[in-house]
Amino acid sequence: MSAAPSSEPRRVAVLSVGDELVLGQIEDSNASWLARELQRIGCMPGERRTVADERMLLAKAMRELAASHDALVVTGGLGPTLDDLTREALLDVVDAGGELESDPAGVEHLRGWFERRGRAMPASNLRQALRPRGAWLLDNPNGTAPGIGARIGAVEVFCLPGPPNEMKPMFARVVEPALACPGRAVLTAALHTIGVGESVLAERLGDLMRRDRQPSVGTTASDGIVSIRVRAEGSADQAREALAATVAECERAAGSLIYGRDGEPLAAVVGRLLLERNLTLATVESCTGGLVGAMVTDIAGSSAWYLGGFVTYANERKMSDVGVRRETLDAHGAVSAQTACEMARGGLSRTGADVAIATTGVAGPSGGSDAKPVGTVYVAVALRDGEIYARRFHFPGDRITVRRRTAHLALACTRFALLGEPTRPLLWSESEAVHVERT
Amino acid sequence: MSAAPSSEPRRVAVLSVGDELVLGQIEDSNASWLARELQRIGCMPGERRTVADERMLLAKAMRELAASHDALVVTGGLGPTLDDLTREALLDVVDAGGELESDPAGVEHLRGWFERRGRAMPASNLRQALRPRGAWLLDNPNGTAPGIGARIGAVEVFCLPGPPNEMKPMFARVVEPALACPGRAVLTAALHTIGVGESVLAERLGDLMRRDRQPSVGTTASDGIVSIRVRAEGSADQAREALAATVAECERAAGSLIYGRDGEPLAAVVGRLLLERNLTLATVESCTGGLVGAMVTDIAGSSAWYLGGFVTYANERKMSDVGVRRETLDAHGAVSAQTACEMARGGLSRTGADVAIATTGVAGPSGGSDAKPVGTVYVAVALRDGEIYARRFHFPGDRITVRRRTAHLALACTRFALLGEPTRPLLWSESEAVHVERT
Repeated sequence: MSAAPSSEPRRVAVLSVGDELVLGQIEDSNASWLARELQRIGCMPGERRTVADERMLLAKAMRELAASHDALVVTGGLGPTLDDLTREALLDVVDAGGELESDPAGVEHLRGWFERRGRAMPASNLRQALRPRGAWLLDNPNGTAPGIGARIGAVEVFCLPGPPNEMKPMFARVVEPALACPGRAVLTAALHTIGVGESVLAERLGDLMRRDRQPSVGTTASDGIVSIRVRAEGSADQAREALAATVAECERAAGSLIYGRDGEPLAAVVGRLLLERNLTLATVESCTGGLVGAMVTDIAGSSAWYLGGFVTYANERKMSDVGVRRETLDAHGAVSAQTACEMARGGLSRTGADVAIATTGVAGPSGGSDAKPVGTVYVAVALRDGEIYARRFHFPGDRITVRRRTAHLALACTRFALLGEPTRPLLWSESEAVHVERT
Repeated sequence: MSAAPSSEPRRVAVLSVGDELVLGQIEDSNASWLARELQRIGCMPGERRTVADERMLLAKAMRELAASHDALVVTGGLGPTLDDLTREALLDVVDAGGELESDPAGVEHLRGWFERRGRAMPASNLRQALRPRGAWLLDNPNGTAPGIGARIGAVEVFCLPGPPNEMKPMFARVVEPALACPGRAVLTAALHTIGVGESVLAERLGDLMRRDRQPSVGTTASDGIVSIRVRAEGSADQAREALAATVAECERAAGSLIYGRDGEPLAAVVGRLLLERNLTLATVESCTGGLVGAMVTDIAGSSAWYLGGFVTYANERKMSDVGVRRETLDAHGAVSAQTACEMARGGLSRTGADVAIATTGVAGPSGGSDAKPVGTVYVAVALRDGEIYARRFHFPGDRITVRRRTAHLALACTRFALLGEPTRPLLWSESEAVHVERT
């Protein structure tokens, strides 16, 4: 392996393999994940290519990328079936005319994998223990497909499986130790905000976003979450200091709009606030149908602060499970501040939780009216022995988008209520529309 | 333009341009959209590359892709700022040593664009009217950046803007008429299965998966769902017939393992089965925390067959909301077939639904034991006036993976129960472990 000089980051190409990628049947989220990880460990992502499961095309891409980069990460094409050809293509590049060899440790791994699961190993799986002469298998604790390591001249090649839950641990275990460059870094930080539009946030950030600024600052938006992205380059020490200084400037500019950093889920932040205050949470969901609960329970350890909840999709369930009154439904409708408040109140009383979140709305595509068009949603947050704050939102987008935005903004409302800012103006809601009842 | 013979689809490469793509800051959804559109109009998507905003690298990629394809679609790098270099790279390829020329119609377009919006045109925008000699601008009704058309030898090149709302209409207006091949098509179909491993499915498909077969058949796996992908080429009529014939063969080989086609969600299939039988559904979720409900309510119109449910995350909620007995929890634990059965039974009785799904398990990372390691999950399906089938699974993977697989397999168990195959062996479960109680 050629050690890269500490002033020049190693350029690493990423090659994604699979007909389904080339044909656009699935998105290649592996490639962008790898790009971010490579930067984190001090490498510079180079070219990215996506090639079909065709032996000649694959071999050509490996050769070309190895010729113009310092290392190469390949994902996909290591499955047990005949349409998986990464092994064969690698053979053509590193041992042209040779034959794939069966790796005894690989066979052992496969036998053990099936044995531990009490299943017979299909003969086709033995293909997964094959590798070119001179190459070596990479351990896969999470699946049947071992990776393959090899060298094309001085260029290290890592062939990883396609499934993200197998690829990511193998990157951390094998690729990171081999390619990490402790002496230099491209460091990035993401600060996540919710409840504010991208252009308003840009105004707050002002000159921090100038293109020629170092470290650079940019913003990206997704499902109501607007993230500030900071990127610093240099020696590890320089980059770390410069990153910290710019992050601090961004934090001053955006204040409590920032809820978390570097992918921290909003639900985890809400959980931390609850834990600090020794409070518990319940959910009562109509239009989100369990999505808020799913986001909350995605967080490991959420059982310490989340009790559970109700998916009151039908009106009958709103009445019998959380005590919404028929008169309220008749007078104001299921999609109303009053119904949302009663749902949240019922969530508190039925579970004994300290905080309850309720959602009710028109996710679409049908069910809208002039007064309550598709995208109209009420979110209520109830605090035990205190107030219930219900807020009307209007979310643009299709059913899936409306539901995800609802779940995120419901967690945002909860966060601001816990921070003592329950009526703070939020994107897609009208601040004057906050409806307050006693619990 | 060289007309492609109707027997051979034109191979079209896609080149995505932008630092933010190479660095993994945003996903490149343009490329997969283009791949699908190219197939729709009878072309074959070739290689896909992603390159940073660097003039030399861009020019090299354009040259290489033009050498191995019949046409090239480039997206991005046409903005007004100095980091947008697609024009300059194209110049280097089609008129090396020449200068970019200002296109009078392009200047006109830009002036009109700003005039109609009552804004002064920044001088930098004039860059967007530049093109190499011999190239031509492509009209952009939706933004300031015109596209650029050119030829590299006989290969047509289309440079389109990066923003999808500008790129997509320009593709339809300019690229489709130029490349569409009405006499020929590349058609694809996806058949989705659940509960079976990729290699077992491959054995069932047998020779259908041979690499040299036309139409081609491959498989991909994600979260327990294994999809069979069929691709047929030829004249539109031939391709349609060949696709239908191969799909029928795959259907015969895989039988009821196939639940749906072309992206149809499993929850929609369960919903259709329920509607046909005039049945309603309730969910009782512990380890999935609302994820099954969220998948179900992602389906538009699910209110016709889904009543709602309970997120019984804490044991207290299992007892008070769905009547799980304390003795059951004490004797067997929260993660047990008995508890899952009582959760499902309670789901029926508390909601009046005809079918109830219950999930309880150890999603991790902590909470596992020797007898019930992380990934151990019980899924129960209860049918009113019938049986409750509880099944033990062991899912590999991290918390997020275990939860998603649980939700998918819970829907799969429900589907097989509705089809009268409640004890069918499923991937990640032991068939002998089906525990049956009366509702």
